[in-house]
Amino acid sequence: MDKILRIDMGAEGGPEVKETSLGEYEGLGGRAMTSAIVSKEVPPLCHPLGEENKLVIAPGLLSGTTAAMSGRISIGCKSPLTGGIKEANSGGQPSQMLARLGYAAIVLEGKPKGDTLYKIFIDKDGVKISEANDLRMLGNYDLVEKIKGEHGEKVSCISIGPAGEMKLSAASIACTDMEMRPTRHAGRGGVGAVMGSKGVKVIVIDDSGMKMRSPKDPEKFKAAVKEWVDGLTKNPTTGKGLPAYGTNVLTNVINEAGAYPTRNFSAGRFEGASDISGETQAELETSRGGMATHGCHSGCIIKCSGIFVDKDGNYVTKQPEYETVWSHGGNCGINDLDAIAQLDRLDDDYGLDTIEMGATIGVAMEAGLAQFGDAGAAIDLVKEVGKGTPLGRILGNGAAVTGRVFGVERVPVVKGQAMPAYDPRGIMGIGVTYATSTMGADHTSGYAVATNIMKVGGDVDPLKPEGQVELSRNLQIATAAIDSTGMCLFVAFAIMDQPETNQALIDMINAFHGWSWTGDDFGKLGMSVLKNERDFNARAGFTAEHDRLPAFFKKEPLPPHDITFQVKDEELDQVFNF
Amino acid sequence: MDKILRIDMGAEGGPEVKETSLGEYEGLGGRAMTSAIVSKEVPPLCHPLGEENKLVIAPGLLSGTTAAMSGRISIGCKSPLTGGIKEANSGGQPSQMLARLGYAAIVLEGKPKGDTLYKIFIDKDGVKISEANDLRMLGNYDLVEKIKGEHGEKVSCISIGPAGEMKLSAASIACTDMEMRPTRHAGRGGVGAVMGSKGVKVIVIDDSGMKMRSPKDPEKFKAAVKEWVDGLTKNPTTGKGLPAYGTNVLTNVINEAGAYPTRNFSAGRFEGASDISGETQAELETSRGGMATHGCHSGCIIKCSGIFVDKDGNYVTKQPEYETVWSHGGNCGINDLDAIAQLDRLDDDYGLDTIEMGATIGVAMEAGLAQFGDAGAAIDLVKEVGKGTPLGRILGNGAAVTGRVFGVERVPVVKGQAMPAYDPRGIMGIGVTYATSTMGADHTSGYAVATNIMKVGGDVDPLKPEGQVELSRNLQIATAAIDSTGMCLFVAFAIMDQPETNQALIDMINAFHGWSWTGDDFGKLGMSVLKNERDFNARAGFTAEHDRLPAFFKKEPLPPHDITFQVKDEELDQVFNF
Repeated sequence: MDKILRIDMGAEGGPEVKETSLGEYEGLGGRAMTSAIVSKEVPPLCHPLGEENKLVIAPGLLSGTTAAMSGRISIGCKSPLTGGIKEANSGGQPSQMLARLGYAAIVLEGKPKGDTLYKIFIDKDGVKISEANDLRMLGNYDLVEKIKGEHGEKVSCISIGPAGEMKLSAASIACTDMEMRPTRHAGRGGVGAVMGSKGVKVIVIDDSGMKMRSPKDPEKFKAAVKEWVDGLTKNPTTGKGLPAYGTNVLTNVINEAGAYPTRNFSAGRFEGASDISGETQAELETSRGGMATHGCHSGCIIKCSGIFVDKDGNYVTKQPEYETVWSHGGNCGINDLDAIAQLDRLDDDYGLDTIEMGATIGVAMEAGLAQFGDAGAAIDLVKEVGKGTPLGRILGNGAAVTGRVFGVERVPVVKGQAMPAYDPRGIMGIGVTYATSTMGADHTSGYAVATNIMKVGGDVDPLKPEGQVELSRNLQIATAAIDSTGMCLFVAFAIMDQPETNQALIDMINAFHGWSWTGDDFGKLGMSVLKNERDFNARAGFTAEHDRLPAFFKKEPLPPHDITFQVKDEELDQVFNF
Repeated sequence: MDKILRIDMGAEGGPEVKETSLGEYEGLGGRAMTSAIVSKEVPPLCHPLGEENKLVIAPGLLSGTTAAMSGRISIGCKSPLTGGIKEANSGGQPSQMLARLGYAAIVLEGKPKGDTLYKIFIDKDGVKISEANDLRMLGNYDLVEKIKGEHGEKVSCISIGPAGEMKLSAASIACTDMEMRPTRHAGRGGVGAVMGSKGVKVIVIDDSGMKMRSPKDPEKFKAAVKEWVDGLTKNPTTGKGLPAYGTNVLTNVINEAGAYPTRNFSAGRFEGASDISGETQAELETSRGGMATHGCHSGCIIKCSGIFVDKDGNYVTKQPEYETVWSHGGNCGINDLDAIAQLDRLDDDYGLDTIEMGATIGVAMEAGLAQFGDAGAAIDLVKEVGKGTPLGRILGNGAAVTGRVFGVERVPVVKGQAMPAYDPRGIMGIGVTYATSTMGADHTSGYAVATNIMKVGGDVDPLKPEGQVELSRNLQIATAAIDSTGMCLFVAFAIMDQPETNQALIDMINAFHGWSWTGDDFGKLGMSVLKNERDFNARAGFTAEHDRLPAFFKKEPLPPHDITFQVKDEELDQVFNF
């Protein structure tokens, strides 16, 4: 990982490839890399779909190594959804492969004059770019089949579906998993639209002939990895809960807590929750011959995912995540796992963020386009996006645009990005994260749910404003650092309560890179990432007034607790005081 | 004009009427009144369509008097289009009538729980509010016919069409003219959507039994009015140019200057300009038995409007304004006055801002929804808005939303509001106004075209950055003051070059109100209005970064001058240094 691959898609004679050393970006990975490049090189007031925006794809500091869980990839740009900086994070195989090929980042720059579509192929011999108009408007599944036919099954793909080609703001970027299915997505913020604007349909990565990256101190690294694996294995969440039921184990938990946003954030408890819970889902998957425990990338030992099959045992989609089950489920009044799996499959195939789409369908239902609970209508609405009809384009641009176009007042977004599966009135810590995150409403940028509800890393009452700002601040800092390592964020459950596992992560970084970081240095990395992002957003016109939840969260009490969001504006403004 | 009428549309048992004294708003009129109330009473982060927004309707300081040109009305709120403060200004009869009935402002507050539609009737005996669901989705023309049947032809109407009921961000509020046609519109910023969100279809005003408002010093007032009328009559623009050809006299002038935005701001000169010029239009109107010179409200002596009839002599619409002829004409590559008149009629009937709609169709054409120059397709697109189809709702939400939904990069908006008929690269002074106005892109908030092109009030080279900031600053201050008097902005042509006419305006205000204002005091009024507006916008999250033109104006040179917008960001930030 000692070079950056820059591809100018707008060069006169067609795409131009340049490999450079890391220079000032030396020592960065993942989100630290993408946010540094975007913050420094992208004009904050540029059009997100214009030639001045850049799409940065970066493996983490430990990606491509033998460290377990290190296969996450960061994709950054100026977001078409929020207008601010964006880092969207995905599992799958590309991160490990790119890292082994030595690339610390791919930067797509410029914009083709015409509408030619390109394929980028990367292997140990370098980069080949070819016209790929035959791939136009293919869904991610068909696309990957075609790539398998050309390049075999040992490559990995980073691709967009029709949504990205249409430059819709809810468009994701798909990464293939171990079975070479396009099921892992850098979902949020419309990164797929930016890839579409660059005219790139797919990046195919072949790491044949490459080896695991070698640590500076192999012995120390090996010892740290062992401690790391032990820590993850013994932790009840990463060692048991997540493997057994996946992220969807949360449906019953959050519903019980009264913070499960139901029917477009109009209630906090869904009567159909048990029908779509992780427990029900795992049982269904197993009984049908699917899989309830499965990893999204090689090197994953938590294996929170699974394989969802239909009643005849045919593959439908990967096990839908908790946030997807919620967004297409309870948020739309839908309690049908098969329908939710179909929606997940459609989203993955069109290349759409499942959180944004479910929230959008909820807003569309509130607008009267369909009845809450009507799964067939929800499927039809998502299919409109695939068809690219005017209605589909509205929906494919997300909840804020849909609310605007249909005149809906209750639109659960911050900075234009839809809220995930936790109502900020019932879990106030996550509300602080939604409001203040540099990313727009985003649970993964400071997952206060862990401490508010699961009592991991302490115990802060979810229904009181006290302590939430400090909690969210600390989590946002830690998350920005973890997102830079290539580590799956779920390792946080272990490192928050097990100091020895936390130390193992630092030890792995140090042994690998020959550094001598302390825990403080790790925190400083997180702070520097957030500072870069805040700086970009300020130059893009964001102010304290953008660090607010929509007004209805302060006005409409959420049943069953009948509580509004209680954290004061002045407190929100303290989150980044560090 | 000693009372404010407040109507709480959200009161438990149905709308509640309250009349109050002016209190802290004493001495304000028009835009000074609307912006003071909105800035003080509306939470800047509220949803524009929510119960916390207020719609404020205010005649000017001299409305309802014998002062010529004093019939403009200001309509203010938080804008659904820009998210900032809004004052949209209209001619027609309501201003004079409301003023004579003694109302300095009507404030619509709250929001009905259900979807009942209301009619508000105001006469000398007070206010009557009745359910009016029979008026649902009527176009403004049919609506006004119905009102005439109920209330006769001597009333005036402030109403919304289907666009306002659908809460579209390009929805206008129509005011009836002297012939009781709904042809004068508070067009910009989606004020019609806010009226729609309040459940008010129409406000019917009957000033029977009321007299002209009486001045404090009748003799002095009479003398000042005479000087005023003399000044307007002798001025070449207000006395000759505007009466003869209307605002559309500008088509040839701006086209000649190379600043006529053609085909969605891709060129500065339109080959079909002479086909749609004011000269051609006046000749066509006259030859068909229409009218080329006609006022929009009683008391108007400039009479810049007219009556556009079809080839059989049947009424189509009022004479389309320059900005309308441009937006639906050259901006879409259309050189057909009959088609443009039809589009103007449709806009007025559905209740849509003609500038926003033409700019939106231009963006839609750039997106490939229709060919530039295809008038039939343009008409069909506007009809989609009337039908409320998904496509129609996209378009009815304006150029920014349309650009977003269809992934278009060249979208000529500032703060979400579409640019009018002057390219900021060819007339840099108006570019400064577009960028910095509290209203979003708006020519009427500081009409630098007058000095850049017509050499009124001085001579500042339109193609150079020098002097534009000072010019725009002075014009924005003066305009905010004029917009508070109820005076038509066209009086500016006379007062900018004729000190005695400027003095006559001050004299009229002083004689009427018993004040002793100097020219400086008038300027201070303008500054205080702008300060209120800037303050609201800052609290709504607007920063210097929002006072910018879209990036393409700095990157794409405009033919024929092949010039980009040259005023620097740091200079733009000096506009409000006063």
